[in-house]
Amino acid sequence: MYHELLLPDIRQMIDEGDEAGLREFCDILHPAAAAEVLREMDPARVWQVLAFAPMETRVEIFEHLGLPHQVELVDEIDRDRLSKIIEAMSSDDRADLLGRMDDEQVEQLLPLVTKAERADIRRLLSYPEESAGSIMSTGYASLREETFVRDALLQLRSQAPKKETIYYIFVLDDGGRLEGIVTLRDLILAKPDKVVRDIMNRDVISVRVDEDQEHVAREVARYNFLAMPVVDNQNRLVGIVTHDDAMDIVREEADEDVQRMGAVEPLQDDYIDTGAATLAWKRGKWLLFLAVVALFTAEVLDRFEETSAKHVWAVLFLPLVLASGGNAGSQSATLVIRSLALSQDRRQNRLLGLLGRELIVGLILGGSLALLGFVVAATWFERPVLQALMVAMTVFLVVIFGTISGLVLPFATRRVGLDPALMSTPLITALVDIAGVLLYYGLALWLLDVLG
Amino acid sequence: MYHELLLPDIRQMIDEGDEAGLREFCDILHPAAAAEVLREMDPARVWQVLAFAPMETRVEIFEHLGLPHQVELVDEIDRDRLSKIIEAMSSDDRADLLGRMDDEQVEQLLPLVTKAERADIRRLLSYPEESAGSIMSTGYASLREETFVRDALLQLRSQAPKKETIYYIFVLDDGGRLEGIVTLRDLILAKPDKVVRDIMNRDVISVRVDEDQEHVAREVARYNFLAMPVVDNQNRLVGIVTHDDAMDIVREEADEDVQRMGAVEPLQDDYIDTGAATLAWKRGKWLLFLAVVALFTAEVLDRFEETSAKHVWAVLFLPLVLASGGNAGSQSATLVIRSLALSQDRRQNRLLGLLGRELIVGLILGGSLALLGFVVAATWFERPVLQALMVAMTVFLVVIFGTISGLVLPFATRRVGLDPALMSTPLITALVDIAGVLLYYGLALWLLDVLG
Repeated sequence: MYHELLLPDIRQMIDEGDEAGLREFCDILHPAAAAEVLREMDPARVWQVLAFAPMETRVEIFEHLGLPHQVELVDEIDRDRLSKIIEAMSSDDRADLLGRMDDEQVEQLLPLVTKAERADIRRLLSYPEESAGSIMSTGYASLREETFVRDALLQLRSQAPKKETIYYIFVLDDGGRLEGIVTLRDLILAKPDKVVRDIMNRDVISVRVDEDQEHVAREVARYNFLAMPVVDNQNRLVGIVTHDDAMDIVREEADEDVQRMGAVEPLQDDYIDTGAATLAWKRGKWLLFLAVVALFTAEVLDRFEETSAKHVWAVLFLPLVLASGGNAGSQSATLVIRSLALSQDRRQNRLLGLLGRELIVGLILGGSLALLGFVVAATWFERPVLQALMVAMTVFLVVIFGTISGLVLPFATRRVGLDPALMSTPLITALVDIAGVLLYYGLALWLLDVLG
Repeated sequence: MYHELLLPDIRQMIDEGDEAGLREFCDILHPAAAAEVLREMDPARVWQVLAFAPMETRVEIFEHLGLPHQVELVDEIDRDRLSKIIEAMSSDDRADLLGRMDDEQVEQLLPLVTKAERADIRRLLSYPEESAGSIMSTGYASLREETFVRDALLQLRSQAPKKETIYYIFVLDDGGRLEGIVTLRDLILAKPDKVVRDIMNRDVISVRVDEDQEHVAREVARYNFLAMPVVDNQNRLVGIVTHDDAMDIVREEADEDVQRMGAVEPLQDDYIDTGAATLAWKRGKWLLFLAVVALFTAEVLDRFEETSAKHVWAVLFLPLVLASGGNAGSQSATLVIRSLALSQDRRQNRLLGLLGRELIVGLILGGSLALLGFVVAATWFERPVLQALMVAMTVFLVVIFGTISGLVLPFATRRVGLDPALMSTPLITALVDIAGVLLYYGLALWLLDVLG
């Protein structure tokens, strides 16, 4: 809510050169809130405002602006000043930003950054996208196991300013291998003359640097961790993923699932920040594909030209038949896909157990919709009883078919190693449509002719 | 992955009365992992295993089991032992569990709990569902502003064992009002002879106890907080919402959005844990509603009986027309709904700005699909050029209509105070279907007759 109220004030302050006001804005507002206001302004003005913030706040606000805005801002400032900000940024945010910039820009920038930071940047940039390595931060606090608790606290005091968190402290051996973990709470509670070895937890849960970010976020959520240690294949600690980054990933991955389920190829940025051309491309691919599937439905309908000419009335209930099957299928797919994406529950692997329940659900839903179809066809549209019965039968069968397909297709997609969310709602609908036409024109209307 | 491997071992240990083995299982495994194994076992056996865990671990494992399993377990243990566990649980998890139990059960249990805990339980149970109060914990650490840093650390040491977190410490005045916040990092870094007042942050961001849990989780994510203070209307601190609870809510709310968008009324528990009757009910309501909308499409088709009898060929392209519009609409709705749910970005309120972009996207998508429709109708299905043109025109118009509806309907839903996610993909599809039939039979085929 800050934005609309503050924006004109800030603009006026810039125009009037009100240094005290701008300084106060940067100082008092939480960096996340300040960033939200600045996001509404053009890049040149943002830098004018940020000039009044002390370096630390400047970097924090910059980090909160988010990637698309950071990329825009980078073009509007000279390399020297930019390199100072890059140096001070947290290592994961920095790697994200540099990963988005032109290679040329990055190569011009890196020589201006201190050698240690440069090595850190190059290493983080080398991890594949969406891996634990690509999202981790290297700003972890560490101790040696033979350290006394009283010295540990002193050491932490000197490490604190440069670390992402000092609430989880990782105990490393000579080779940088992860031996244990102590929390700051443990340290505070321990007697000062104890040794870290005696209070540390040795059963450390960690993730491998090449594991998928979704897995990492899920593990953080599962264990309620503040930070998850990331190790290489020799168990050497290479970074940490903090709770706030894990939360961002959970949100991103939910977005991606939703977008795939809505038949949109996942967007890189927020919907708001995405251009029309990108949107058209990411949607168009799927729309065209789905249109081709719809043409197969047309092809199937074409095979029933005679039936359809004889029973022109039947087209009335085509939308009901197709919608019922498609919607029932979408519902199952929605539930199954999210369940597969989120849960660690092994029971979800037992397709057979779920099939039984889904069949019961399908019978109940199919029965209810069939009854509705029968009553409406017989009364509202005044069709003969036999015709209404055939409509009802088709609805019954297509709902059961849809329900089962919505369960089985995501499982099958996962089985062949693809993301179950690819079984988008529209795709399930399109596939069930074909089955719906076959059941309606091929079975029900054929039966009608036989019985009539 | 633990489950399948450990489960037979554990069963054997119980059967053989292998105390040492069971003790080790409870002791070595992370409580979250132990809970995952136990979730596969029947309640009586779970208690047999938990009996070997020390009280603290027992409660941690119990908390990790999750609500549906906790409710089952509660029935299998005597009230005295249960009251001990209830007493030791964290205040938010405890309130959730008691909120799910029968009132009668709760009333029998409460007298067995200490008076202080009882008051805490009653207060937490009194907050409305999905409010900040209903998810918060009362286990926060607090200090007075006049305390010296060295004393503060000592005080924290005595508070630590009973608190959810001691990394954020809240500074309260005589009346319990929230005056400031210090982090444990601040305290560690500060000189011991400083006073809390001098190092605390006074611009505390907090949420009101009656605010929606979704808002709370969003604020935690926005500010990357470890814990968000929850205050009453007099700014008195009443609890905190920790990062892990916020993460759970983000996941739950994403699930709910997905389920609504898939036309399923949100489930209380995981899909895996939900019974067939509940599933049928939560899905059936929406399916019936959508079937009624589909019947309106039938009604509209009925009005075009003559046209449809004259142009029997036209039914072939009905699935393409309906699917194209529906899918384009679903895509827009998917993107808009998630964007409205997640983003704090005020630009999303500017429907007009988004309309322009969506129109461009609609033109591109509509144009591409129309071209496809024309080519396929003219060649694959060998329709005359004028008929193919009419199919293409309908597809073009219906895609644009779908795209715009998918944007506008969620906005309109929000405007009238409802959740935009109610504009489920199937509902958008159903509404666009009606428009599709009108455009196809009402406009395109009518034009064909006029032109032909």
